[in-house]
Amino acid sequence: MEITLHSIGIIHSPFNEKDQTPIQSSRSQAIGLVELYLEFADGLNGIEDLSHIHLLYIFHESSGYALQVKPFLDDQEHGIFATRYPCRPNPIGLSTVRLVSRRDNFLTIEGVDVLDGTPLLDIKPYVPDFDHRTDVRVGWYETRSKK
Amino acid sequence: MEITLHSIGIIHSPFNEKDQTPIQSSRSQAIGLVELYLEFADGLNGIEDLSHIHLLYIFHESSGYALQVKPFLDDQEHGIFATRYPCRPNPIGLSTVRLVSRRDNFLTIEGVDVLDGTPLLDIKPYVPDFDHRTDVRVGWYETRSKK
Repeated sequence: MEITLHSIGIIHSPFNEKDQTPIQSSRSQAIGLVELYLEFADGLNGIEDLSHIHLLYIFHESSGYALQVKPFLDDQEHGIFATRYPCRPNPIGLSTVRLVSRRDNFLTIEGVDVLDGTPLLDIKPYVPDFDHRTDVRVGWYETRSKK
Repeated sequence: MEITLHSIGIIHSPFNEKDQTPIQSSRSQAIGLVELYLEFADGLNGIEDLSHIHLLYIFHESSGYALQVKPFLDDQEHGIFATRYPCRPNPIGLSTVRLVSRRDNFLTIEGVDVLDGTPLLDIKPYVPDFDHRTDVRVGWYETRSKK
């Protein structure tokens, strides 16, 4: 099955170079701005009451993909689906950021880890009752994911 | 910007009707089977060492979208981006499930909350260091997200 998606906005960030961009939002204190296209602004109603949101977006600067990759945090190869590496068969990124404020169709966020100009696909509320798991094993990330 | 995505596999589940389908993976103990198309199987290398994975997929049975919706858990309207409701401008779903086992291009998962035959877009590792947030406010979910 194929599906054509259209961006619903733009993520503005301080990062213009891949190698300056934080590898995860959890490691970033950078402030960014989510600009939703005006036609979608009403979809933000109530979002001010949330402290954290998931952003889904296109890795627009990644071209092509590999099934075995050396991720930023390791010097060993892993299957792409055991990593968060951007060069994926479907180049969709997921970041969880803190929502600082909303003004009309603009969201100020903290913890941005994407390139400036990243096309936004979706915003979802982060809800610990849904999103938090315990007793987790993380494989090769075990010694690599610590700050 | 528009982008055309192709499914990389199929999620098989026990659920054939929307109203029988759990509203979140965190509320489901159902067993499902992720079938990755064979050409992508090598991308799973190393995934056996992970206990939990994010699945990104298409809400293939949702048609169109609304900016104000009454989600399953509430009788009040909220902006679509303050909810996890499936009828979204870009109908992409996100579920975090437990990985029970891998065999070749098949993953047995626990906590499936999607319809049988759901087209899969991506698999990402769930890594608490990246994905877990504390001091979270969840707005209207506050009294609604408890099991």
